[in-house]
Amino acid sequence: VSGPVRIGLLGRGTVGGAFLDLVGERADAIEAATGRRPEISGVLRRSEGEFEEILAASEIVVELMGGTDPAREYVLRAVREGKHVVSANKQLIAQHGDELFGAAREAGVQLRFEAAVAGVIPVIRVIQESLAATEVSKVFGIVNGTTNFILTEMAKTGASYSDALARAQELGYAEADPSDDVGGADAAAKMAILARLAFHTPVRLDDVAFEGIENVRPDDLAYAKEFGLSLKLLGVAERHTDAISVRVFPCFLYRGHPLAPVEGPFNAVIVEAPSITEITMSGPGAGGTETASAVLGDVVSIVAGKAPVHAVREQLEVFEDVGSAFYLHLEVADRPGVLAQIAAVLGDNRVSVKSVVQWGLGDDARLVMVMHESPESRFYAALDEIAKLEVLRSPPRAIRVIEEEFV
Amino acid sequence: VSGPVRIGLLGRGTVGGAFLDLVGERADAIEAATGRRPEISGVLRRSEGEFEEILAASEIVVELMGGTDPAREYVLRAVREGKHVVSANKQLIAQHGDELFGAAREAGVQLRFEAAVAGVIPVIRVIQESLAATEVSKVFGIVNGTTNFILTEMAKTGASYSDALARAQELGYAEADPSDDVGGADAAAKMAILARLAFHTPVRLDDVAFEGIENVRPDDLAYAKEFGLSLKLLGVAERHTDAISVRVFPCFLYRGHPLAPVEGPFNAVIVEAPSITEITMSGPGAGGTETASAVLGDVVSIVAGKAPVHAVREQLEVFEDVGSAFYLHLEVADRPGVLAQIAAVLGDNRVSVKSVVQWGLGDDARLVMVMHESPESRFYAALDEIAKLEVLRSPPRAIRVIEEEFV
Repeated sequence: VSGPVRIGLLGRGTVGGAFLDLVGERADAIEAATGRRPEISGVLRRSEGEFEEILAASEIVVELMGGTDPAREYVLRAVREGKHVVSANKQLIAQHGDELFGAAREAGVQLRFEAAVAGVIPVIRVIQESLAATEVSKVFGIVNGTTNFILTEMAKTGASYSDALARAQELGYAEADPSDDVGGADAAAKMAILARLAFHTPVRLDDVAFEGIENVRPDDLAYAKEFGLSLKLLGVAERHTDAISVRVFPCFLYRGHPLAPVEGPFNAVIVEAPSITEITMSGPGAGGTETASAVLGDVVSIVAGKAPVHAVREQLEVFEDVGSAFYLHLEVADRPGVLAQIAAVLGDNRVSVKSVVQWGLGDDARLVMVMHESPESRFYAALDEIAKLEVLRSPPRAIRVIEEEFV
Repeated sequence: VSGPVRIGLLGRGTVGGAFLDLVGERADAIEAATGRRPEISGVLRRSEGEFEEILAASEIVVELMGGTDPAREYVLRAVREGKHVVSANKQLIAQHGDELFGAAREAGVQLRFEAAVAGVIPVIRVIQESLAATEVSKVFGIVNGTTNFILTEMAKTGASYSDALARAQELGYAEADPSDDVGGADAAAKMAILARLAFHTPVRLDDVAFEGIENVRPDDLAYAKEFGLSLKLLGVAERHTDAISVRVFPCFLYRGHPLAPVEGPFNAVIVEAPSITEITMSGPGAGGTETASAVLGDVVSIVAGKAPVHAVREQLEVFEDVGSAFYLHLEVADRPGVLAQIAAVLGDNRVSVKSVVQWGLGDDARLVMVMHESPESRFYAALDEIAKLEVLRSPPRAIRVIEEEFV
C-alpha cells in the first residue's frame, strides 16, 4: 500500500480538534514513521458531514464522539466495511466490547483504543502487546483524573469535598455534571476494559463493584495523616485462581506506596505478574492534546502495520554546554569573609546561589550550597577558581541537582 | 503462516535459561495470542550447538549471548537470511545499531531489543510505537539497577560506597567486576539507544558523556538531606533545537520528583514531549525472569505480526469476598471498657487490629483504627455489630487501606 492514508474523523470536540491539529503538525513525522502521509478524508460533526460519505472515503475511522449511540453503530459499520478503527470511547468499549472485538476479528481489521483508558499512559498497548503471553495477576491504579484532583485538593488545603469539586470544575478538571467521575462509574468502565484485556475474559460493567468519593470528609484525610496515609480512588482488578474481582473504591495508601505520590489530574496504573514483578506507568489522565496524542499513536501503529525498524530521520549535533544546577560541598577555614569571597567568585561567573547551609567544625567550616541552573561551563570556571582559594581545606566536591521542586 | 514458530536461542546464561522456562510455561498463552505454538529449534552455548544449523532451523533468532563478538556477526547473518531477531544486548545495539538496523530494513525483518534497556520497562516499545510520531523533547531516568541499589543502600544505612558495593555483590545486584555499572558505561550504552530512538538520529557511544558513582561519599548524602535531596545516577537525553545532549551523571533530586522514590534495583524512565506532557514508567531493572519476559514480549509481537484484537481465552468467575484492610473511624462515649468492647466485636469476627489512635473530645472520644486484611464479609459483619453498639455517637466510617508498607 502506498499513497496517503485517508483518515475519517467522527466527532470534533476538544479531543477531535486537538487530533486534527496534531495530524497537521506531525504529518512529516508520520510519513517518516510509516511511509505514508496522513490525510483527513472527512469530519463528522453534529451540524455537518455525512457518515456514509466519510466511511467510503476512509481507510481508518477515528471515533471521538463519545456515548454509545450512534458510536456503536458507526464503529460496527466501519469494521464490517474493512476499515481499521481507533476509538477513545471507554463506554463503547466497556459496554459493547464483545460485539466490537468479534466484528473486528471477523473482518481482519484493527480496533485500537489506547485513549479510552488512563489518557496518555500506554497501558492498553503494554497489556495487549508487551504482556500478551504474560500471566497478569493484578492491574490496579488511579484511572480517574477528576477524583484524584479533588482528593489531592482536599488533602492539601483541607477543603471540603464540595469546595474541592467546585475548584475542579473551575479549572476544567470536572464537568458540570460530575456524577460519572465522582461516583466511580467512569473508573469502573475503564477497569472493566483493563480486566478484560489483562485476564482475556469477558467483563461486563455489571461485574464491577464501585464506590465513589462523594462521602469522603476532610476529617478522614486529617486523621489518616497520623498513620502516614493518603487517600486515592483506586481501580483494582485481580485474579484469584479461576475467578477475578474488579472493583473501584476510595482507599488509603501508606507513604512509599508507588501510587501515593500520584497527585492532581494524573493517572497511574500498575500491572503485576510473577514473571515481571511489576510495571508502573503514570502520566496525565486527560487533556485534549494528550488524549489526541494517544489516538495518533494508535493511528500510526495501524499505518506502520508491524513494528518499525529504527531509521534515521535527521542528523542532530551533540550539544556541549548543557545547563545544570549543582550541589557544592566545601571545607573552608572558618573566618570572616570566606562566604563572601566564594559568593563573589560564583557571582563573577554568573552562577547564582539558591541555598546555603554552614556547619562549624572548630577552626574549619563546612559549606554546602545548591546553585540555580547555569551553563555548566560557567559553573566549572567558578569551581576552578574556588579550588585555588587559599581558604579551602580540601578539594571542592560538586554534584548536579535537578532544580525543579515538586510540592 | 501456520504451524509452530521455530525459535533459535543463542546463549544460555541466566536470562537464556529463564527464557526457555517461560516459553515452556506460556506456550498455551503464546498460541492463544498468536495462533502459533512456540518451539525451540536449537540452543547455542559455548560447549554445544552449531550456529549455522540453528539458523537454518529457525524463523526467529533470540540473541542472549552478550558482548559484540560473535553476537554482531550472528545477528547480521540471521537478519540477512530473513530471520527476525530479538536481542537483549545493549552493547551490540549501542555500538552497531546503524549497521544492524540498516540490514534489518533491507531484509524486511524485525529487530527487537526491549530487554536491552531498563529491564521489564517497555520503554523501547513505547518510544518506537506509541510515540512514533511524537516530538520527544527529553528522555531521562534511572537505567542502571546496580548503582541505584548502591546509592539506596548508602542513603539508608550510611554505608560507605565500598561497603554498599560489597553488599550489592553479595545479593547478586553487582558483578565481580562492577566497573561498567558503577562507572556509568552501562547506563551510557542504554542512553545512546534511547536517544537514537527518541530523536531518530544516529548516536554513538562516544557522544555520551558519562560519570559514575565511585566518588560519592556518605557525607554528601547526609548533608544533602538538609535540602531534602536524594542521589540517583541519571541518564539524560535532551533535544536542544537542532542538537541533542546525552549524559550520565550522579544527581540530586528534590523530594517529590517522580524519580526520587525509585529505590533499590528498580529502574524508571520518563519521556517528555509537548503533546504528552510526560509518561513515567518504572519496574525491576534486571533479573533473569524479568529480562526473559521482555524478550518473550518481543517474540510474541513478531509472531502476532500486527496488533492483536482482544479475544476471550477463558471464562473467569467474578469473585465476591475479596480480602481488604480497613481504616475505621468511630465517635464513641469516652468511658472505660469501650475500646475493649469494640475490640471484642472485631475479634469475634476474626478481624485483627493493626493500629489505633484515640483522641479525647470531652465526654466523647474519637477512635481511628487500621485493620489487617481479612475477607470483607467478616469486616462488614463486625461493622454491622459495632454500628448497633449503644456507645456509638455517630455512624461508623470505614475506608479501605492497602496494607503493604513500603520503606
